[in-house]
Amino acid sequence: MINEKMLKLGTKRSIIREIFEYGKKRKAEIGEEIVFDFTLGNPSIPAPMEINEAIINNLTRKDAHGYTSAVGDNKLRESIANDLNKRFGTSFKFTNLFITYGAASALCSTLRALLNNGEEVITFAPFFTEYTVFTEAQGGKLVVVPANLDTFQINFTEFKKLINSNTKAVIINSPNNPSGVVYSEETIIKLAAILNEKEQEYNHEIYLITDEPYREIAYGVKVPFVTKYYKNTIVCYSYSKSLSLPGERIGYVLVPDEVSDSKNVYAAIAGAARALGHVCAPSLLQFAIADCASLTSDLKAYEENRNLIYNGLTDLGYECVKPDGAFYLFVKALEPDAYEFYKKALEYDILVVPSDDFGVKGYVRIAYCVSKETIINSLPKFKKLIESYK
Amino acid sequence: MINEKMLKLGTKRSIIREIFEYGKKRKAEIGEEIVFDFTLGNPSIPAPMEINEAIINNLTRKDAHGYTSAVGDNKLRESIANDLNKRFGTSFKFTNLFITYGAASALCSTLRALLNNGEEVITFAPFFTEYTVFTEAQGGKLVVVPANLDTFQINFTEFKKLINSNTKAVIINSPNNPSGVVYSEETIIKLAAILNEKEQEYNHEIYLITDEPYREIAYGVKVPFVTKYYKNTIVCYSYSKSLSLPGERIGYVLVPDEVSDSKNVYAAIAGAARALGHVCAPSLLQFAIADCASLTSDLKAYEENRNLIYNGLTDLGYECVKPDGAFYLFVKALEPDAYEFYKKALEYDILVVPSDDFGVKGYVRIAYCVSKETIINSLPKFKKLIESYK
Repeated sequence: MINEKMLKLGTKRSIIREIFEYGKKRKAEIGEEIVFDFTLGNPSIPAPMEINEAIINNLTRKDAHGYTSAVGDNKLRESIANDLNKRFGTSFKFTNLFITYGAASALCSTLRALLNNGEEVITFAPFFTEYTVFTEAQGGKLVVVPANLDTFQINFTEFKKLINSNTKAVIINSPNNPSGVVYSEETIIKLAAILNEKEQEYNHEIYLITDEPYREIAYGVKVPFVTKYYKNTIVCYSYSKSLSLPGERIGYVLVPDEVSDSKNVYAAIAGAARALGHVCAPSLLQFAIADCASLTSDLKAYEENRNLIYNGLTDLGYECVKPDGAFYLFVKALEPDAYEFYKKALEYDILVVPSDDFGVKGYVRIAYCVSKETIINSLPKFKKLIESYK
Repeated sequence: MINEKMLKLGTKRSIIREIFEYGKKRKAEIGEEIVFDFTLGNPSIPAPMEINEAIINNLTRKDAHGYTSAVGDNKLRESIANDLNKRFGTSFKFTNLFITYGAASALCSTLRALLNNGEEVITFAPFFTEYTVFTEAQGGKLVVVPANLDTFQINFTEFKKLINSNTKAVIINSPNNPSGVVYSEETIIKLAAILNEKEQEYNHEIYLITDEPYREIAYGVKVPFVTKYYKNTIVCYSYSKSLSLPGERIGYVLVPDEVSDSKNVYAAIAGAARALGHVCAPSLLQFAIADCASLTSDLKAYEENRNLIYNGLTDLGYECVKPDGAFYLFVKALEPDAYEFYKKALEYDILVVPSDDFGVKGYVRIAYCVSKETIINSLPKFKKLIESYK
């Protein structure tokens, strides 16, 4: 009688939640420091001090807790536009930005604005599992292009087979959750060329939605700024990772003027946000981030962690594409069934996420946004784990 | 090509926005203090000091900005349950509460959880205009029962004509926006009796969704706590008005154990929130409100305002049902077309909202959450306005 789809979404067994609950229990049993929990993408580096100072400063505003306009505080929108323009040589205005409850609401509003019932959205494995939920709930169908297992760049051969006249949008996520791979400039150029060609062939727009919560977390490689490569690009962003504010739910949608009919696309995103129960993003945090839009947390620790765990595991014999960004490592399981491997790892108190829900079989995701000690102390356990397979 | 419904929602002419923009311009022209702007329901009383102190205190938490669980922080949920139980003699547990981005997201998640395509939701004029948007966007159809113009209590005669086997839910909002009227215990008892009878007749649940952002703003009358009168009641709440935090987007859905199949209803609400891009409500504010759940802003000023403006206007000859709650007065326009009356009032620099979008013709809404001075200084203008009609 109630909505069955929503009930399923609310009750569906979630492997990450299951591991999380197990981890909590296990830590209580044997002690937190000897459970090696690589499950969650919760930033281990604190938010910059300046954010907390800005929160305290903005508390004295008369309108600290007041409604902002639905599109967001103008000063925040200007700060973001200025910061992007400075870093990427773009020329965005504040009117290109719509402030959201983080990337999740940015993606949902964008998908709802673009999709008509039954239209298809393509994404590339491995992919963030919620894309399926977000796309289906907004009336679309998610089509997943199988992974390119050699590099975790885009598998263009398979992409060309799946794109069709019912394709309305493509979602990319680079630096990628769960692989940690950064799409190269070559990849983005090739993707743009195909999309341009297909737009002509089908005679309608194909929007490229670029989900970029990890944009600032990259190690010595360039993360191409996608709006510069493809006209119909819409950026969805969150401050969850770059400013370590995952719980505060602040992000944005960026609709460049170059997008066809961009004013209407922007208006439809505003309309969709309204339809999804968005009134305005949390006001105090909007004001605080306006003062700090060009900052990031001290992200260097993630690079140290990346080196430690990547070198540690590959030295032990694990196979993994070297990740240049985000804080994830996508490691080949030591047996075909990732879930069995995950269970085996549990015997060594190593908690990782099997890859099936990310659209790839036979891998596990390791979130290395943890303390250095956790990584160092986990390596002997990983050693025992790989030895158990010999 | 993009979603036409969302485009319409994003571009639709909004009378409140239009007035707001006009007001801004006019204030810049002639001075803020001589424009009498009664347009917006933005609390004029600041948040209690304790909230800002709690924000600062909670900033020192390691997890101040971290994800909370999707259902919300347990301490906050417990504080709310305890506060409700103490005040209303109920026995809710924290597991009955799901924390949301304010009432808008509470309503959207609840409607999405309950509705199957095309099912009907009934509400009573005058009503909060966004109910139409929220219901349609979640796949339902909003059916509006005409107002009882004598009292602005429920028009039961018309309600009985409109309820039918396709009715899935009923939304009430008391104290009411825009009328300020509090539904009496008699009204709630009668409503519950009809719903019980119709549940039996149709052999399915009819959920009563009670949207209660103004619950704490009532002047010397009892606001019946609806879950005590009808089993299948779901409460949607926001701290926007009671704690003067409209921009912070914190509220909740309360699903009592008494609701049929309540665990599944709760799970479907969680699923729906996920489908709408909800990850968790803003963390720092969740922690702060957990410390202040039993507080309200100093709401006495609204009662003073109510007396001032109600007595002032009725003395001048305006007609209005005396409102016992919220911070709205619903005044009969001095000509049949409320929009024409609104335009006439503009000539006296009085800004009010014509009633058509609230589902009633021939009234205007006056939001008296303004300074005392604004009200006092507006009365001579209201005098001139009524004289202009003689």
